[in-house]
Amino acid sequence: MIVDQTLLPERFETARLATLDDTARAINTMQVRGAPLIGITAAFGVALAMRADPSDGALHHATTVLRATRPTAVNLSWALDRIKTGLRPVPTDQRAGHAYALAQRMADEDAAACEQIGVWGVEVLRARARALGGRLLNVLTHCNAGWLATVDWGTALAPIYQAHDAGLPVHIWVDETRPRNQGLLTAWELAQHGVPHTVIVDNAGGHLMREGRVDCCIVGTDRVAANGDVANKIGTYLKALAAFDNQVPFYVAAPMSSIDWTAADGAAIPIEERAGDELGHGASVPVANPGFDVTPARLVTGLITERGVVRPDRTALREMFPEGQ
Amino acid sequence: MIVDQTLLPERFETARLATLDDTARAINTMQVRGAPLIGITAAFGVALAMRADPSDGALHHATTVLRATRPTAVNLSWALDRIKTGLRPVPTDQRAGHAYALAQRMADEDAAACEQIGVWGVEVLRARARALGGRLLNVLTHCNAGWLATVDWGTALAPIYQAHDAGLPVHIWVDETRPRNQGLLTAWELAQHGVPHTVIVDNAGGHLMREGRVDCCIVGTDRVAANGDVANKIGTYLKALAAFDNQVPFYVAAPMSSIDWTAADGAAIPIEERAGDELGHGASVPVANPGFDVTPARLVTGLITERGVVRPDRTALREMFPEGQ
Repeated sequence: MIVDQTLLPERFETARLATLDDTARAINTMQVRGAPLIGITAAFGVALAMRADPSDGALHHATTVLRATRPTAVNLSWALDRIKTGLRPVPTDQRAGHAYALAQRMADEDAAACEQIGVWGVEVLRARARALGGRLLNVLTHCNAGWLATVDWGTALAPIYQAHDAGLPVHIWVDETRPRNQGLLTAWELAQHGVPHTVIVDNAGGHLMREGRVDCCIVGTDRVAANGDVANKIGTYLKALAAFDNQVPFYVAAPMSSIDWTAADGAAIPIEERAGDELGHGASVPVANPGFDVTPARLVTGLITERGVVRPDRTALREMFPEGQ
Repeated sequence: MIVDQTLLPERFETARLATLDDTARAINTMQVRGAPLIGITAAFGVALAMRADPSDGALHHATTVLRATRPTAVNLSWALDRIKTGLRPVPTDQRAGHAYALAQRMADEDAAACEQIGVWGVEVLRARARALGGRLLNVLTHCNAGWLATVDWGTALAPIYQAHDAGLPVHIWVDETRPRNQGLLTAWELAQHGVPHTVIVDNAGGHLMREGRVDCCIVGTDRVAANGDVANKIGTYLKALAAFDNQVPFYVAAPMSSIDWTAADGAAIPIEERAGDELGHGASVPVANPGFDVTPARLVTGLITERGVVRPDRTALREMFPEGQ
């Protein structure tokens, strides 16, 4: 059962994914979106495939099909590698059950990681608010990295929800996030939770920062390279540049499942080129539609992970996550 | 007679402005848009007012009403100051005729200035193409600064048209330019002229620059401060940051009528806040909609004016335009 995010914020509807193909389609068409969530959804997709056919061939086929749905978010590969490795030694007659249990464990871990990101992140916001004399804190975010994008809480929005719940006065600038307008998902989430917010076009953030109307940026990520470079929704890099130019702290909320230890730097991260019809200008207008960009580590103030806030560099990341390869 | 730009690119329709109020409404609703064009249109609006009532009071009223239509483009004040100063000593029975003649002279001068911006700008593009070994030159532009935005030629697009006509192979990345999507006007102009182009969301330009797929940026401007800071359509600053970060030359095409000698720097330029319904997300979504931003002179490679390319600083601007106050 998923929330069909292509219908939001107009309609809140759930859909049932019954097969591997349903799952692959849901990820590819962005009914399910958000790096952590597509990883978990893919894990459940493998479980669905194992219910139909628990053979090694079917396991290989399922992970291959799901891996091909979206290229940029590493959480997808991470979840598929983990479930494949976990299931291979399991006898075929027990695989479906094991697959569900493992997918559920990963879902629980994701929710716990996001909650923990919130715990660390709220300290970042609290410190920033203190530095500014306790006035209303204006936080800018790009795309949607809320509970819709994860199992629960969200990554970038977890600190915001926890700050709001703790009585820290926050107001969120929500980038529209063309072409898919995931900012409207963020606005919808924030409205549900009662967090004050304002939607702006993607062009506006730089101007607001120049005017001193943004105190902090927090975004999610689809993949963090081993050196701290960060891939996230297209346009993130532009906001990071503006934040740097105006001394606005720029944080990336990233569970360990978003770190790709095999990517030496951002140049090794594949950037998805999506269909041009997402722009909605008709077939007569030639368009290009890259889905993500890379923000170099030098523009990132810190990564907010489930273990704490870490400097975006190789040494600091290895120290915090010694099990990373 | 104007082209109603709110109907483009779907429909090309002209409208007749018969009164002062027609003219003010056309500028405010952006049927007429583009800094140089709104200046000239306002001048003709004064002529229309003088035909109805050539008194000093009517002259004052007309310039006051028109000045209030849009705050950021200085060409509007420039044109109104010029026509007011020009008409004041003229006997009332000759004012209407004088007003038309002066507005027409300003229109002719604007077309000539833009053509001349093209002549200087094409040299910039030619030099850049030479430096890159003569391959296809990828130029990024934001908003619409083509012939639709001026009397003819355009500012930022004048060099592009002239380069294309001279056989220099160019391809244009066209920023969509939310919320009003003036990039579609640019795409429409370029398609009419046969210039290869690709529309991208405003989020994408930074990524393309990081990938080495942009060789040069050229944008228009609504107001250049005396120190070379540049106000232009919201989002320009973000592209200038990305260009600077990737060593991509960033040029601003600016006729002298866009220079505000009374604005010491960008902070003195008023930024229009437009109605939130331009974003199109419905009344339940809280929005903000600043229409322009300021790009600091340090990010601008050069201003392409009708007299040549000039460094964006006070001294260089004063040398090139000694008549500026």
